[in-house]
Amino acid sequence: MTDSKRQIKLGAFLQSVGHHLAAWRHPDVDPKNATRLEHLKHLAQIAERGKFDAIFFADGLGWPQIDPQLLAKGAPTYFWEPLTVLSAIAQVTKNIGLISTISTSYLPPFHLARLFASLDHLSGGRAGWNLVTSGTDFEANNFNLETQTAHLERYQKAREYVDVVKGLWDSLDDDAYLFDQDSGNFFEPEKLHYLNHRGQYFSVAGPLQSARPVQGYPVIVQAGSSEDGKNLAAQTAEIVFTAQQTFEGAKAFYQDIKQRVAKAGRDPDAVKVMPGIMPVIAETRELAQQKFDYLQSLIDPEIGISLLSAFIGNIDLSQYSIDDPVPDFPTTEGWQSRQQLILEVAKRENLTIRQLYQKVAGARGHRILIGTAEDIADELQYLFEQGAADGFNILPPTFPQDLTIFVDQVVPILQQRGLYRTEYEGHTLREHLGLVRPRSRYHASA
Amino acid sequence: MTDSKRQIKLGAFLQSVGHHLAAWRHPDVDPKNATRLEHLKHLAQIAERGKFDAIFFADGLGWPQIDPQLLAKGAPTYFWEPLTVLSAIAQVTKNIGLISTISTSYLPPFHLARLFASLDHLSGGRAGWNLVTSGTDFEANNFNLETQTAHLERYQKAREYVDVVKGLWDSLDDDAYLFDQDSGNFFEPEKLHYLNHRGQYFSVAGPLQSARPVQGYPVIVQAGSSEDGKNLAAQTAEIVFTAQQTFEGAKAFYQDIKQRVAKAGRDPDAVKVMPGIMPVIAETRELAQQKFDYLQSLIDPEIGISLLSAFIGNIDLSQYSIDDPVPDFPTTEGWQSRQQLILEVAKRENLTIRQLYQKVAGARGHRILIGTAEDIADELQYLFEQGAADGFNILPPTFPQDLTIFVDQVVPILQQRGLYRTEYEGHTLREHLGLVRPRSRYHASA
Repeated sequence: MTDSKRQIKLGAFLQSVGHHLAAWRHPDVDPKNATRLEHLKHLAQIAERGKFDAIFFADGLGWPQIDPQLLAKGAPTYFWEPLTVLSAIAQVTKNIGLISTISTSYLPPFHLARLFASLDHLSGGRAGWNLVTSGTDFEANNFNLETQTAHLERYQKAREYVDVVKGLWDSLDDDAYLFDQDSGNFFEPEKLHYLNHRGQYFSVAGPLQSARPVQGYPVIVQAGSSEDGKNLAAQTAEIVFTAQQTFEGAKAFYQDIKQRVAKAGRDPDAVKVMPGIMPVIAETRELAQQKFDYLQSLIDPEIGISLLSAFIGNIDLSQYSIDDPVPDFPTTEGWQSRQQLILEVAKRENLTIRQLYQKVAGARGHRILIGTAEDIADELQYLFEQGAADGFNILPPTFPQDLTIFVDQVVPILQQRGLYRTEYEGHTLREHLGLVRPRSRYHASA
Repeated sequence: MTDSKRQIKLGAFLQSVGHHLAAWRHPDVDPKNATRLEHLKHLAQIAERGKFDAIFFADGLGWPQIDPQLLAKGAPTYFWEPLTVLSAIAQVTKNIGLISTISTSYLPPFHLARLFASLDHLSGGRAGWNLVTSGTDFEANNFNLETQTAHLERYQKAREYVDVVKGLWDSLDDDAYLFDQDSGNFFEPEKLHYLNHRGQYFSVAGPLQSARPVQGYPVIVQAGSSEDGKNLAAQTAEIVFTAQQTFEGAKAFYQDIKQRVAKAGRDPDAVKVMPGIMPVIAETRELAQQKFDYLQSLIDPEIGISLLSAFIGNIDLSQYSIDDPVPDFPTTEGWQSRQQLILEVAKRENLTIRQLYQKVAGARGHRILIGTAEDIADELQYLFEQGAADGFNILPPTFPQDLTIFVDQVVPILQQRGLYRTEYEGHTLREHLGLVRPRSRYHASA
């Protein structure tokens, strides 16, 4: 199964006790797992048993200052700082990639370069960085700012940021270390490079005081679907996560990204497009639908509306009745792309606020597939073979149950069809993804 | 041995392949261990076998932009980002405390609060934070600045920083979580607190989106010996690390700190003063001295002078002859306290530059004890019982060898004398140190 045939890539998107908004209230779920490291270690091991390319953490820098009564009704998100947790998980796994979201907005690039270099070394080359910019005022308020930075500026800054980070990762050549006890040279002085970056947003001298990461650079991931986001992805990303509700949308997005990548002078195969999928699986379609309906029934309406409001740019919905059609809103400086995707769905399907929050709340904008393991495998195969995806970021509605079901029931079908690995091809995330190890910027002159 | 008798506290200061400047060139040392996580895990396990209170990492944010030929001759310092590494080490240890230096200068307090909360949760309450401010221009140059901030301002800022961090750790009361699936309340809304800090240097809204740390607050450590540093320590520290060359110096420092702590309205027992000690141990005093002399002979003179220069404030020493007496220098905005300590020694002992760098290079300003295990135990007991120390931060000259020797030979003597634990008293770092778990700032009103 490790021939050169194109195969599906899989990410396990880990979050608390499940991706469904009401997961923590499900009687089969232990809500205390939201605060237990053992739970996350266990999930990573299940995903590794399923030969997933990587586990993935989203991240956010705080909670909105909304009514505490409302906050208290949601399972805590982003309880853990992701890089410390991935470092811990790296010790109980061997092969699976370790991807975390880290925002460029409030962490100096020197710190980020160092954190990911360290994670890449201590995991033997399994680190991936999902580059985001922070898009809310409540996050800005935790970092000395009144409001978030404008969307375009965030992306311009992010582009320079990535360049600085890669430059720091190149501080020492791959073969710089000598360990020569006799001569007293620990490394070869010619193989040390000072970055001396002076740009529009950053001045960073370097060097980073660590060996070049095992993977050269940790794998760069992005999830932006706005124009700015897609352009940044075309230039820098190696994995693109996306939320797509339909086959047509997914295919158009896939083609758009691949074209932009080619225009940016890169190999389209060097960027893996992985839409998010929430699989709701049971022995029959009816049972799967019942399972989903039961989860939906556990959503508190207050929470549903609040989540929807946050997703369309923290717009106050309290003036509307819950059964009004979704009104038109201006785009804000927040997450433009997500906003747009959600509002498009509302218009296309002519939804009320209640219908939209139910739709969004379930998988937070990602596509929900409800059916048997065979149904799910069929749909993934279709998306993959029809040019709409290189792989999928899987969002199980509850943890650990629905991840286990996916690994035990869907993975074997994909393997039988020759669409998915039966064993890891290597030890690094780059090797799993079939991505080239990038050379240092100093390689030609070295 | 777990009676209420006052006992010695021990920290294992871990650094690369040893604390002696030339450790990596010693034929018994494997210099490649400087880049291996397994090496650090192994050291932590040795220290835990020795019932140490904690392991400890120093930290620095970059390398100076000096001649690469010179940099290449030193073993790499601060290769690893310490919080990711401590998170990994937490998975292969059970009881030992995990202390890291993190500078307040270039990391927003929200990030720091979150990183340490996460480390404290994932280690079951073993995190400690050694609060430093960054004192070099080369570090400033990695963070958009031309020069470091003035010494006094760094400390004023640090004081506000600690206050913000503790406020964020108090975001949720200890008993805030309900996990109530029926009512749909994950936590009790009244037990969530928005910080809304607006100070001279920081505006931080909060809340931190994690449970209160296991220890309430991770243990706060400081090592400043300047006036500003000692005052900050008196107000906030629970462990004070210090470099003291003599019994008299150590005793004066100890008394000074305890008095300042009392003046700040705190219990002097709530702050443990732990001088650094580099023990050079062999079966006889003669063999120990030979062992030390051999290590000293491995120091490259260029490196010795460069280190000395860095330690006294990056002052250029190239204009002086290596056998000139140490000249007078003005204090800089760098590490004022360390500078002063070193220059005092030079004056007192009338040293040349060569003699001073040899002295400093050995243990980087810390006291070196050379002798048998019995000699070392005697001296530690003396310092401890005569009011010069509550414990010691141990800097083995080479790793793992000299840490193993200390654990196998010195620790049993201290245990036999009833001066040191034979088993951990609890599971958290606070419990090892006999420190009270701090209440939340909202406790009285809760």
